[in-house]
Amino acid sequence: MRPSGRNLSELRPITIETGVMGHAEGSCLIKIGGTHVLCSASIEENPPRWLKGSGKGWVTAEYGMLPRATNTRNRREAASGKQGGRTVEIQRLIGRSLRAGVDMRALGERQITVDCDVIQADGGTRCASITGGWVALRLAVNKLLKAGLLNSDPLVDHVAAISCGIYAGQLVADLDYAEDSEAGTDGNFVMTGAGNLIEVQMSAEGATFSRDEMGGLLDLAEAGVAELVAAQKAAIG
Amino acid sequence: MRPSGRNLSELRPITIETGVMGHAEGSCLIKIGGTHVLCSASIEENPPRWLKGSGKGWVTAEYGMLPRATNTRNRREAASGKQGGRTVEIQRLIGRSLRAGVDMRALGERQITVDCDVIQADGGTRCASITGGWVALRLAVNKLLKAGLLNSDPLVDHVAAISCGIYAGQLVADLDYAEDSEAGTDGNFVMTGAGNLIEVQMSAEGATFSRDEMGGLLDLAEAGVAELVAAQKAAIG
Amino acid sequence: MRPSGRNLSELRPITIETGVMGHAEGSCLIKIGGTHVLCSASIEENPPRWLKGSGKGWVTAEYGMLPRATNTRNRREAASGKQGGRTVEIQRLIGRSLRAGVDMRALGERQITVDCDVIQADGGTRCASITGGWVALRLAVNKLLKAGLLNSDPLVDHVAAISCGIYAGQLVADLDYAEDSEAGTDGNFVMTGAGNLIEVQMSAEGATFSRDEMGGLLDLAEAGVAELVAAQKAAIG
Amino acid sequence: MRPSGRNLSELRPITIETGVMGHAEGSCLIKIGGTHVLCSASIEENPPRWLKGSGKGWVTAEYGMLPRATNTRNRREAASGKQGGRTVEIQRLIGRSLRAGVDMRALGERQITVDCDVIQADGGTRCASITGGWVALRLAVNKLLKAGLLNSDPLVDHVAAISCGIYAGQLVADLDYAEDSEAGTDGNFVMTGAGNLIEVQMSAEGATFSRDEMGGLLDLAEAGVAELVAAQKAAIG
Amino acid sequence: MRPSGRNLSELRPITIETGVMGHAEGSCLIKIGGTHVLCSASIEENPPRWLKGSGKGWVTAEYGMLPRATNTRNRREAASGKQGGRTVEIQRLIGRSLRAGVDMRALGERQITVDCDVIQADGGTRCASITGGWVALRLAVNKLLKAGLLNSDPLVDHVAAISCGIYAGQLVADLDYAEDSEAGTDGNFVMTGAGNLIEVQMSAEGATFSRDEMGGLLDLAEAGVAELVAAQKAAIG
Amino acid sequence: MRPSGRNLSELRPITIETGVMGHAEGSCLIKIGGTHVLCSASIEENPPRWLKGSGKGWVTAEYGMLPRATNTRNRREAASGKQGGRTVEIQRLIGRSLRAGVDMRALGERQITVDCDVIQADGGTRCASITGGWVALRLAVNKLLKAGLLNSDPLVDHVAAISCGIYAGQLVADLDYAEDSEAGTDGNFVMTGAGNLIEVQMSAEGATFSRDEMGGLLDLAEAGVAELVAAQKAAIG
Repeated sequence: MRPSGRNLSELRPITIETGVMGHAEGSCLIKIGGTHVLCSASIEENPPRWLKGSGKGWVTAEYGMLPRATNTRNRREAASGKQGGRTVEIQRLIGRSLRAGVDMRALGERQITVDCDVIQADGGTRCASITGGWVALRLAVNKLLKAGLLNSDPLVDHVAAISCGIYAGQLVADLDYAEDSEAGTDGNFVMTGAGNLIEVQMSAEGATFSRDEMGGLLDLAEAGVAELVAAQKAAIG
Repeated sequence: MRPSGRNLSELRPITIETGVMGHAEGSCLIKIGGTHVLCSASIEENPPRWLKGSGKGWVTAEYGMLPRATNTRNRREAASGKQGGRTVEIQRLIGRSLRAGVDMRALGERQITVDCDVIQADGGTRCASITGGWVALRLAVNKLLKAGLLNSDPLVDHVAAISCGIYAGQLVADLDYAEDSEAGTDGNFVMTGAGNLIEVQMSAEGATFSRDEMGGLLDLAEAGVAELVAAQKAAIG
Repeated sequence: MRPSGRNLSELRPITIETGVMGHAEGSCLIKIGGTHVLCSASIEENPPRWLKGSGKGWVTAEYGMLPRATNTRNRREAASGKQGGRTVEIQRLIGRSLRAGVDMRALGERQITVDCDVIQADGGTRCASITGGWVALRLAVNKLLKAGLLNSDPLVDHVAAISCGIYAGQLVADLDYAEDSEAGTDGNFVMTGAGNLIEVQMSAEGATFSRDEMGGLLDLAEAGVAELVAAQKAAIG
Repeated sequence: MRPSGRNLSELRPITIETGVMGHAEGSCLIKIGGTHVLCSASIEENPPRWLKGSGKGWVTAEYGMLPRATNTRNRREAASGKQGGRTVEIQRLIGRSLRAGVDMRALGERQITVDCDVIQADGGTRCASITGGWVALRLAVNKLLKAGLLNSDPLVDHVAAISCGIYAGQLVADLDYAEDSEAGTDGNFVMTGAGNLIEVQMSAEGATFSRDEMGGLLDLAEAGVAELVAAQKAAIG
Repeated sequence: MRPSGRNLSELRPITIETGVMGHAEGSCLIKIGGTHVLCSASIEENPPRWLKGSGKGWVTAEYGMLPRATNTRNRREAASGKQGGRTVEIQRLIGRSLRAGVDMRALGERQITVDCDVIQADGGTRCASITGGWVALRLAVNKLLKAGLLNSDPLVDHVAAISCGIYAGQLVADLDYAEDSEAGTDGNFVMTGAGNLIEVQMSAEGATFSRDEMGGLLDLAEAGVAELVAAQKAAIG
Repeated sequence: MRPSGRNLSELRPITIETGVMGHAEGSCLIKIGGTHVLCSASIEENPPRWLKGSGKGWVTAEYGMLPRATNTRNRREAASGKQGGRTVEIQRLIGRSLRAGVDMRALGERQITVDCDVIQADGGTRCASITGGWVALRLAVNKLLKAGLLNSDPLVDHVAAISCGIYAGQLVADLDYAEDSEAGTDGNFVMTGAGNLIEVQMSAEGATFSRDEMGGLLDLAEAGVAELVAAQKAAIG
């Protein structure tokens, strides 16, 4: 019934290749089916100004899409002179999600910037960015740990995300573009490795949704995030 | 226990004064406690370019805050040359929320822009903007109906929004700024008059949240939105 | 003869409501007929950089208009990425006018920013901004005086403004939009409570004007400003 | 008494060299003492969009300053990404002033843009821009007349401008930078060849001014503009 | 003697993987040693406005660098609101270079945009962009040819580029970052498959250079470009 | 054969008038035929931040064109909100070229900004800017030397530039606009007084070029730059 022939709860194939950006403290190329995102984590040994002297660090994220990541070419945001509303909204979500898994005091007065750049888009780029972004962050923090610059691990748990929604009247997991553009309701679920919730963003597009449907999507999300966390673990080794 | 002395499920006083911006097709000043938002709806007898010839209309929203709506003065966005990320995120939410209550084919090829400008902020400005913005939209559509420009009412139901969250370990409704800035989890719930869900946005800030807590917040939201819808009805008369 | 039926020297009804923006050190909503402007004064305990160590303070102003303050919706300046030429010209006039009534040495090394945001426009918004802006400034300075932070009152006199012009061949006071858009000559007169001149800006639109006409408009302005100053006094109490 | 040794009513030496920008329909280099401005007029055979079909034309102006026109280098506005408030205010004044001397119906549906670029600044650049800008405009219109593209001369009279102010307690004409930066009151007077007023802009800087002083400055301005108009006539030949 | 141990005329390993961006009409990932660039070609069936009706097409290029392509993170250009001077200069070079190999009349009234995004930088990114960009362009044009949309092949020859320079007093080919940052003279040479010159850009950095040195660098460039063209041929198959 | 009737190697008349911008430490108006550029050099007694404490100075350049320097009016870059790609490319070339002739350690921790503003354009504006910019730089440095602020002359040699290209199949020197817009190959050659090369930028436009042609253009450039250097010497006296 799904355009891809997948079962309702079936995720697309996941691969996470690490170390793809040689200069970054942590990096990976995450592929969730046809959605490919390059993620890097950059450490700066200075916190943002408003945290100077607080003993705490910060994690932030930026998101971009290559102009031809999509079916038709989009204008380059650097050329149009500003980041679009969708970009801003997504990178704020990525940043909040990753920060929820970090003990800022354990990180100490430094900042880590996670860049997520979509090479190819086929739905779910913000979720792939969070899942891959966490891997880059993990690798960068590992470098700090190995260098003896941290007293304890500031990453308290995995963070991963999946989109689930209502397509053709059915609850389905990991929507691809063909489904996403037709879905009546679309949700993004960010969770920890332990299965706790970090962010839930559900939007009705065309039709409203009920609490029962919300529950069903959460069930799908829990199972999906568990798979994504397993892929993160395999990638980090 | 709450800084304001309110009960856990108690909303702040709500007033909605209509007709406050004489040139607009619809307008109101909504006050939810210390949060005051001016909302106007402007009709343009042309849809956006990508809807020309489609027979459908469009509803969009813009959000702003007067520089001294908050405790310390914020830089004027017009002067700094761009809308901040928070502004962009909020106005996209308002637009999506209002659109979910509109039958675009019944609206026909015209666009309605809802402007929400915060005069004074004390938490929950995006929710007040949605609730007040819908009143402005309702009044503008009423004008079209009275003028005989529409065959049927394009507004399918009320749209209203409330923020609920976990403050000091308790689930509370309609967070004010004192609570919002301390809350561990914060959610915005947009619903219809019939109690269906349009948008759910929940964020952990500091601590993750469970499905049970999510359910409890939804309970609070349902009751709160019912009160807001009643206030909308009273305002429109 | 005037569209509103007013006498040649008759001003529109004036109301000034203070304390409308709870967070600001001083604020008011000034209504001159159908022109409504929210004015706030924000104190910052730091002067601009170029006055550091000078012993002097600074007063500046910013001006804005809600998108639907006018008959048709204007594009939001924050969205278009810059303040238009008219906005810049007006806020520079407001700033210069208010500064002319302030002893900067008595103010000391702090800055007061006066924001004037037009809620509804019906001609004369820049003059209403100056008259209301001064009330906000007065209230903010009163707070500093009560707190014992000033040795003497830095406000040397009232500052108020009125537009007068030549409409249908007649000299008239306090032009509304219907008159302003047809006037052959239009002038803005900023004066002190003592009747001294701070700014005179007269423009021929379509026809030039003579020294005699200029004198007649000054006569109208003097009488009008006296009324406005009386309204300021009443508002402050 | 004046830093330059001039009499109170004495203008600086005026020279106007025409034809200095070979591609422009009209151009001149105007020097008022140490203030040097390049003025060009460019004809476009299309009016602005809002005048299409009206039978009327338009005249607009733009103003700029080379970065090192002043004593210390200013940041290039093209590099900083926007025109400053002072620039915007000045170019609006130049445009309004020149338009006051043009019969837009006689000009027909075309636009003339007058560019005024300050090569060297020593006070009074906006006035020199108006006086020189009118010469460029005159020369461009002459070209249209010679080419038989106009039925009648759209320029109804000369337009010229002078600054007069109160320096060291004395009323003086044509302030240079040394005077301007110390003046208590500073006014710009734009007039026609017949001596009628187009624009009057007077600002108190530090001290207010009286109606008598205003009259005295107008006297100086009338005499000064007569000299400037004579220089315009000599330049055009 | 070279930091990498290469011979003076030895290029870094070259790999060109095609088809890496599934949505683009043509794409490749080119790796020249540690310099990795994603290139895509996007066809639009409309020429730029100024070519409408001319019977000719256009090829243009845009260049970007992921923020962490380099040793330290650079600010994202989309976030800073404009493309830097270096970016602008490079993308103009890429565009001119590729256009030199295209018969615009044979291409017909369509536009091809070549995007070059640097994933990892180790010197020579603009040359790799040209060499890889041509492969993407070739693949996109092949699609047009296969679809029967062109009467003849608009690509008249290969286009490839190499940087050569004077490092530690020696003429060397294909400078990497370690060499480039120390080189006294640095040149970029764009050539056709037939060995003709398209662009030569040589800059002295610190020391000037002689005509003899220029000749020696051209010798190196000719040999290097021949290798790059061979790699292009192998990639296209 | 050339539109101007010049011989193949003949330059246009050169004049360099110094001291034309009274406030600048060094300035000149350079005229190469119909190409007129105002050049100024401004000294700032602070190096850019990244050179603080290095003992070295910096030279940078900015380039602009008055809107009506060309045959049709160009939009003012300050009004359009950014410098175009061509402007950025040119000012980077001017800066690099001038820096190649300066010993930054001898200059010491100060910055000199050279502004080149084109008053009238007839081809070769970037070359005229370099040749004239160097004169302004020389005069500014002379001021520092006379004031005893330098131990030795930081200018190691003259810097001048010429464009040569292939017009109608012939190698010609100092292309004017009529030639430039038709030229098959166009090169800019920046050289020292001693005849060494600083920058070579050659571009094929329409047809590629050979090494022989490149050599021929270099011959023309060497002779032309010698003439320009002679003109620089005459101007400085």
